[in-house]
Amino acid sequence: MRSQIIRFGIQTTGDTKMIDITERVRQMVRDSGAQNGQALVMTLHTTTAITVNEGLPDLEDDIVEMLQELAPADRNYRHARFLHSDGQMAVNAPSHLRGALLGFQCAFPIEDGELVMGGRQTIYFVELDGPLYREALVQVMAT
Amino acid sequence: MRSQIIRFGIQTTGDTKMIDITERVRQMVRDSGAQNGQALVMTLHTTTAITVNEGLPDLEDDIVEMLQELAPADRNYRHARFLHSDGQMAVNAPSHLRGALLGFQCAFPIEDGELVMGGRQTIYFVELDGPLYREALVQVMAT
Amino acid sequence: MRSQIIRFGIQTTGDTKMIDITERVRQMVRDSGAQNGQALVMTLHTTTAITVNEGLPDLEDDIVEMLQELAPADRNYRHARFLHSDGQMAVNAPSHLRGALLGFQCAFPIEDGELVMGGRQTIYFVELDGPLYREALVQVMAT
Repeated sequence: MRSQIIRFGIQTTGDTKMIDITERVRQMVRDSGAQNGQALVMTLHTTTAITVNEGLPDLEDDIVEMLQELAPADRNYRHARFLHSDGQMAVNAPSHLRGALLGFQCAFPIEDGELVMGGRQTIYFVELDGPLYREALVQVMAT
Repeated sequence: MRSQIIRFGIQTTGDTKMIDITERVRQMVRDSGAQNGQALVMTLHTTTAITVNEGLPDLEDDIVEMLQELAPADRNYRHARFLHSDGQMAVNAPSHLRGALLGFQCAFPIEDGELVMGGRQTIYFVELDGPLYREALVQVMAT
Repeated sequence: MRSQIIRFGIQTTGDTKMIDITERVRQMVRDSGAQNGQALVMTLHTTTAITVNEGLPDLEDDIVEMLQELAPADRNYRHARFLHSDGQMAVNAPSHLRGALLGFQCAFPIEDGELVMGGRQTIYFVELDGPLYREALVQVMAT
């Protein structure tokens, strides 16, 4: 077994935004030369998420709206105070909570050099506290 | 390392239904001959889910009811319009949203040819937009 | 590829409590001697969870409060009846539901003998029905 870790960056452009990274991940898997194994897709942040859903803009909006309802922006969160480590007030509790609901990673099998995915499955990197430059990775474990 | 992908079908019988697939997955792992490694269980659809919980019918109902509350059927979703790709109106936004909350996959270790699971852990395939014929897979990665 | 499964126990001290297990998992990975591969972290219970978030006490409280809102304690759950298997009334439906929302496992790459994690990513074992003695495991799959 070989393990390869491919790190990549994403410059997000909005506060909350679902970014389709499926083709990018597919290409990384192809470039890895892996034939059979598994790809783990993972964000390295705690105010972003990775989720898999059908790739439709209207659905992206519905998902964002659900997150805004389940972890509303206007609550009295405890995590809204001066953070010495950041040198500023932290008001991103909802970003963290929404991330916890969606999760931060997914895995897909690799077969004959290609990701095995359902026909409508789309891999989303979800910005929840942007715009920011973000880092994610794909780990390819393969024979 | 060897990777085996076992695809399987599930004919669901209701609109929203939790289907215990634990024994089926266990048997696939046994049939694979794998002794030590990991099994990834994954649905190939975006209006279904995979979740792990205790195997009790009353709990299944409580989970379904929670999903119906967190992503209610009667909202003004954007994803409720004519889909040319499907040739029909799409009114299944809540199915997608509920799937996003539960997730679509899980993994368990394999030790001495058997899945390593907690005594009450049950693997559920969750239909969220049925009844339909659905496809899922188990990937066995083993020494 | 080598698979090692390290089981470990956690004595929880509250009804609902997020317990940072990051350093413990890091040490298990170091002790395994694995250089490159992946670590799966998993609880063996259905009224606990594994989640990854920033390691801040105020955020832990916000996450717990969100779970209490999304799966409130005071609903008429079906799963609230005498369980012969347990010899007592089961009133822990919310614990199961909250676990379903957070998930029960996570995976991180191992590179040069160390876990690959984002700078703020913290691995939490989440007690949802304590205090109890709990079991979890780390599976290390490595070259």
